[in-house]
Formats: sequence, C-alpha cells, structure tokens
Amino acid sequence: MNHNSDTNPLDHLVKMLASLPGLGHRSARRIALHLLQKRDKTMLPLARAIQEAAERVETCNACGNLDLCNPCKICCDTKRDSKKICVVAQVSDLWAIERTSAFRGTYFVLGGLLSALDGIGPEDLKIHRLIERINELETEEVILALSATVDGQSTAHYIADRLASLPVDITRLAHGVPVGGELDYLDEGTITTALKSRSAA
Amino acid sequence: MNHNSDTNPLDHLVKMLASLPGLGHRSARRIALHLLQKRDKTMLPLARAIQEAAERVETCNACGNLDLCNPCKICCDTKRDSKKICVVAQVSDLWAIERTSAFRGTYFVLGGLLSALDGIGPEDLKIHRLIERINELETEEVILALSATVDGQSTAHYIADRLASLPVDITRLAHGVPVGGELDYLDEGTITTALKSRSAA
Repeated sequence: MNHNSDTNPLDHLVKMLASLPGLGHRSARRIALHLLQKRDKTMLPLARAIQEAAERVETCNACGNLDLCNPCKICCDTKRDSKKICVVAQVSDLWAIERTSAFRGTYFVLGGLLSALDGIGPEDLKIHRLIERINELETEEVILALSATVDGQSTAHYIADRLASLPVDITRLAHGVPVGGELDYLDEGTITTALKSRSAA
Repeated sequence: MNHNSDTNPLDHLVKMLASLPGLGHRSARRIALHLLQKRDKTMLPLARAIQEAAERVETCNACGNLDLCNPCKICCDTKRDSKKICVVAQVSDLWAIERTSAFRGTYFVLGGLLSALDGIGPEDLKIHRLIERINELETEEVILALSATVDGQSTAHYIADRLASLPVDITRLAHGVPVGGELDYLDEGTITTALKSRSAA
C-alpha cells in the first residue's frame, strides 16, 4: 500500500490525530473509533475533504489569508478600502474580524507574534512584507488588531516603532469591558483600562 | 473534482471536523488552519492515514473488536482462555482493559448500553449474539465490565437476567476506591460501596 503498511494503520491514525492541536491520545482514540463506526458517511468523506482542501486552498501572496484564489477574495474586492490595512497575527484572527462584518478594509497576516519564550523574533514575522504592502497600496491607516496579551502588545509596540517614519496613522483595537461582560467577573487590568479610556455617555 | 466542488472546500472541511466527537466549530477551525499550514507533513499524510485505516481495519465477527484481521488477534490467540468472556460496551473499553494486560480471556463488544433516554433497547445490543458465543465457546465465566453508571448497571442487570438459565458464572468488576484516589475527593456513593465491600487487610 505505502510505506506505512508495516505499522498498524489504526495506531498510525490515532497517533496522527493525537498530534493535532487540542487533541490528546484519549480524544484521538475516540475520534478514530467514531470514524471506523461510520466509514462511508464520515470517514471516507473526511479523508476526501482533507485532500481536497489541501489541493485547492491557497495562501494569498498579498495578505496571507487562506482562500481558493490568489490574491484572495478580500484583496480582489474593489469595494473594500485598500487605504486601511488591519494587521493580525493569524488567519484565524482575520476570520474572527470578518465574521463581525464591521471592517471593510484589507488585511495583513503577520504569521505570529514576537515571543521571547518561543524564540520568535522580528525576522520570523512578515514585517518587511507589511512595509512593502503599505508602500504599494499607499495605505493611510494601519490598524494593529493584536491580542491584548504580553506578546500581542509587545509586537504592536515593535511594529508601531518600525512604521513610525512612514506617512500612515497607526491605531490599535480599543481595550475595555467586553460587550455582555459583568464588571464583577472582570480582572482589575481590564477595569483600570476601561476607566482610563472612558468616553462621554 | 466531486460533488462537493461547488461548496468551499475549507468550510466543508471545518464542518466535517466539527462533527467529530469532542470537537466544536472553534477547535475544528483551529485544526483546519494547523493542517493547511503543514500540508505535506501533516495534512496529506492524515488524509492517507484515514483512508488506509478505513480500508484495512475490520470488525471481528466473533467479538466485535476492530483489527486488521477477522477474527481479530485476540480471538485467534490460542494462549488466551476462551472459557472467560469479558463483556464490554464499546471497543474503547476493550482497549482500556487490554492496556492493563491483566486479562487473558476473550471479549465480547455489546455495541452500547441500554438507555431509556437515548432510546436504546435490548434489541439494539448484540445480546443474542453473546448467548450464541457463550454456547459456541462453552464459556464458564462471563465478566460484565460495564461502566458504573446508571445505564451501565442496568445493562449489567439485564444481561445477568438473560444469562441466568445458562451454566455460566456471571461476575462484575469490583467497585471501590480507585487506586491513587484520595478519600477526601471521592463521592459518597463510592465510599459507601467501598465500605460495604471491605476485605481483610
């Protein structure tokens, strides 16, 4: 069959599933059993779905989004405002913002966050490409939509420094009380920030 | 490509992954992104592993185990005691017992537990096949290794009733304090059972 035919394909499947993010050996075994019990309805269609996505989904050379076309639908959409670039760490963050339908500009996926712990430095992120992109599009505003974590905020500071000499406005997402959040359950840092950034009611 | 080519293969993959046990939309998206970032090392090998397991893993006609051969390795192993049948609900329970290496008899997978809530009645479990198997093997002991839940225990009672007229000993797993378990963290039911079933020290 292939080079794996000497190992047990069931053990091999469980091992491969267990290597996916968020899955351990126990959940991988559970999924493998579920698949084997529904071979025609779930297992073979899943194998085909993975293969088809691997063959057809491309990374957009302009922004780093994943889509069926390159450049992606967002970069090709002439109704979107190419003067605004929203910088995100990962494609999942881009999708999270797209689900809100609140942003009609374009994106740029950094590919991660600076992290001293994980040994990720500026050269591992596509900051150079971001600067090229800003010049190409004659961008007017760069929105740093990075997580409100230590890594996210230090990455935002670093990028703001790097872009300081360019003729662009650099903005970041507002910090404050999440919509639907109860004050009683919020951490002190969020309440302090929300107080400092208070606005007229 | 196939009948799914009109839908977005990325959405389709996320939807398929989200239908697996223990995964929701968020974890499915995370896995899909992880796969797309490691196409050659993880994504295509996973598709092949799923397909290969689907093609090569069989259900044992004798006991219901999943293996590369039918009857399975356990049923074919002449060193194992075919006079003892360990009855389990699912293949995962069989594997859990096998990992202990503490049982050298054979197994029988019921395929589930009686459950009024989920509408699973005796005709949905392979109890008839279990009785045939007991007669074929001239079994001496049937060990009911079912979960200590309401469904597990009512299934055990039901099977014990059905097998009452056969010349077999019917036993069940001991209930008590789990090895490594701290009394302080155990529920009252377990402590009560452990007290009632106490043995000489």
